[in-house]
Amino acid sequence: MKAAIVATGSELISGLVQDSNSKFLAKNLNDLGFQLENIFICGDEKDNIKNTILKAAENSDLVFITGGLGPTKDDQTKEAFAEAMDLELIYSKEIENKLKNIFCNHQSNMTSNNLSQAYFPAGAEIIDNNRGTAPALKVETKNKRFYLLPGVPSELKYLFKKKIELELLNMTKNKILVKEFNFIGIGESTLAAKIEELNFHSALEISYQAGRAEVKLRLKIDDSKISDQKQKNELINKAAAKIKNQFENLIYGEGQEDILDKVHSLLISKKLSIATAESFTGGLIAERLTEKGGSSQYFLGSIVAYQQKIKEDLLNIGSDFFKNHSVVSEECVTKMAENAAEIFNSDLVVATTGAAGPSAHNGKTAGTMYLALNYKGEINCFKFSKNYGRKMNRFYASQIALFEIYKMIKESGENNA
Amino acid sequence: MKAAIVATGSELISGLVQDSNSKFLAKNLNDLGFQLENIFICGDEKDNIKNTILKAAENSDLVFITGGLGPTKDDQTKEAFAEAMDLELIYSKEIENKLKNIFCNHQSNMTSNNLSQAYFPAGAEIIDNNRGTAPALKVETKNKRFYLLPGVPSELKYLFKKKIELELLNMTKNKILVKEFNFIGIGESTLAAKIEELNFHSALEISYQAGRAEVKLRLKIDDSKISDQKQKNELINKAAAKIKNQFENLIYGEGQEDILDKVHSLLISKKLSIATAESFTGGLIAERLTEKGGSSQYFLGSIVAYQQKIKEDLLNIGSDFFKNHSVVSEECVTKMAENAAEIFNSDLVVATTGAAGPSAHNGKTAGTMYLALNYKGEINCFKFSKNYGRKMNRFYASQIALFEIYKMIKESGENNA
Repeated sequence: MKAAIVATGSELISGLVQDSNSKFLAKNLNDLGFQLENIFICGDEKDNIKNTILKAAENSDLVFITGGLGPTKDDQTKEAFAEAMDLELIYSKEIENKLKNIFCNHQSNMTSNNLSQAYFPAGAEIIDNNRGTAPALKVETKNKRFYLLPGVPSELKYLFKKKIELELLNMTKNKILVKEFNFIGIGESTLAAKIEELNFHSALEISYQAGRAEVKLRLKIDDSKISDQKQKNELINKAAAKIKNQFENLIYGEGQEDILDKVHSLLISKKLSIATAESFTGGLIAERLTEKGGSSQYFLGSIVAYQQKIKEDLLNIGSDFFKNHSVVSEECVTKMAENAAEIFNSDLVVATTGAAGPSAHNGKTAGTMYLALNYKGEINCFKFSKNYGRKMNRFYASQIALFEIYKMIKESGENNA
Repeated sequence: MKAAIVATGSELISGLVQDSNSKFLAKNLNDLGFQLENIFICGDEKDNIKNTILKAAENSDLVFITGGLGPTKDDQTKEAFAEAMDLELIYSKEIENKLKNIFCNHQSNMTSNNLSQAYFPAGAEIIDNNRGTAPALKVETKNKRFYLLPGVPSELKYLFKKKIELELLNMTKNKILVKEFNFIGIGESTLAAKIEELNFHSALEISYQAGRAEVKLRLKIDDSKISDQKQKNELINKAAAKIKNQFENLIYGEGQEDILDKVHSLLISKKLSIATAESFTGGLIAERLTEKGGSSQYFLGSIVAYQQKIKEDLLNIGSDFFKNHSVVSEECVTKMAENAAEIFNSDLVVATTGAAGPSAHNGKTAGTMYLALNYKGEINCFKFSKNYGRKMNRFYASQIALFEIYKMIKESGENNA
């Protein structure tokens, strides 16, 4: 079934705002099995919106139209749509009441402007918008289905996920099978090459999405190649099991899971405390470990020892140490992790030292990075030589740090997580 | 003059990749005085590209087409364009030579695939792509001008800025006057309300773009209202001067300038050292101060004292202090800034304490934030009560910190910056 998207708004056409709504809808429509043909973006003028809707409807059975549903004179989507589809705009008392209810729930006053929102293309079905004042609409006409959604991304996403997705699933009659795995510590192309070697069935669509220092692998069944639901289930479950088994050490979670969420929950459930001693990451790991509300349950503090002298003075390493060891070395990062655990009296310490780039540091090329994890006295060291540029080098190290914290706690034998 | 954009690529239509090229082109075309009517996005299939190009060309004098110019079988934009415009694809020996030169310059081998790139719609003018292998094209046909550009964002931006922008400026015969000011410490709507009060000439278009804890204000002349170039100059310069004067304390720079760049350059040129003592910002200010290569010229280190005990032990505040003072107080942040300067022996210290949110902390509501700046013994304190959510509260504080560091050094009487 073919679908199209029309995004309206002068802020989109002037290039001031990125149209993220269409990307969201496109991804979700594809996942649901629709064939998205086009995305059309236009400004606020009624005639342009009307013509764009006509172009979009030409080849599609399902059209999403976003933006321009508010109560001000800029908001002309309903009028444009009604003209394009030869529908009357009618005033609906029922909808007025729904609107009044919405305003009442929002505890805000309704102005006469807002009453313009009670005009609807004939035959439209109102979709209550619990997140804003502009109601969304569903209209079936000319053998096509149209959804008119507000342009505010949070409202649009909410309405799509809570009120529309399910009925679209019924529309396609597909039961979409998708599995997603999240990887840290392996690049997209390396992962793709290794997956290639596993010679999966040709009905298995495998795609990759590179995130920030992580990769999402996505398994999906190509419906044109297999139709039997049981076969589909088997195929995807077998493949998922194989991937999980093969890449156990590189997968931290599935789907929408986030490594920071996982570490956060684990530290809280295990009642562990953590501190960091950072050099080239400059406080980034501390910053990430305190990103979520409730982090004071585990995070104690950090010493960012950017200069050698600060390592000597605040991390008690002593200047003699550096006569024999580089600041960019396994010995140094180990010492940092050791001493910080004493200073903070924490269950866990993460320490880092390295050459963030762009230039070499202490004789070590940019991207030479050391990480140490001290878990109740047991210290593990990691060395990487990557160079994605200064900013990404630092972020990469913080990702690995979070992943290694996660693995270390998981493997520590306690089993209540 | 009317313009349209066609973005091609299955990764765009599947929602896996955000189409940032169109936003970039839209912004630049608007700045150059073109009236952008539509942005069209389509997949990789030749017929869809062809139909989309026809739709785009319907009402526009200038059409940008992006993506699908590579040497593989997915790349069908030239074929689709030639069919849409009834142009022959011809093999050009001259272009083959240009391609060979490009490959030679890139020090890479040319495959027979690449020779397909020597086929061009009749009449096309090649635009050398110094950043990639796919050359861009300019075609004038049917009284319209078309640009075919590669989809790789860095190549597209480079080609547009270096090879196309100037000839477009000649095309519109406009001399665009734009001034941009960057604000920190004031919200978009407050700023807009204050600007409104200044009653600027109606030919002055004023727009706002909210960034992360900053706002860009943009002045532009509406050409339909004034045509005389001297008048235009006067109008925009006068307005710019008035804004600069009125909001001196809230403007950190113009156009593409970045607060971090400015602080970075200033710290280096003044040969100043800096350290941080952070509580609710969790290391974010340290992390930002070490974001740029060369930051070791000024950044010494940080103590992230997230817990009261760490403030007592590592920042030498002593537990008695907290019998009389809250950890979220001006007294506490002042003490942190004072003691950290001794510990690090730095010219500057930034200290923070506060309730990042989402919940209250130490009796202070979420978003109560204290910041102290210690510049060679002179301490300035700032208090904010904002609540943009935990993550943005922290980032907001770091922006204010950078801006206040900038102002403090600028105002410190030394005049070599």
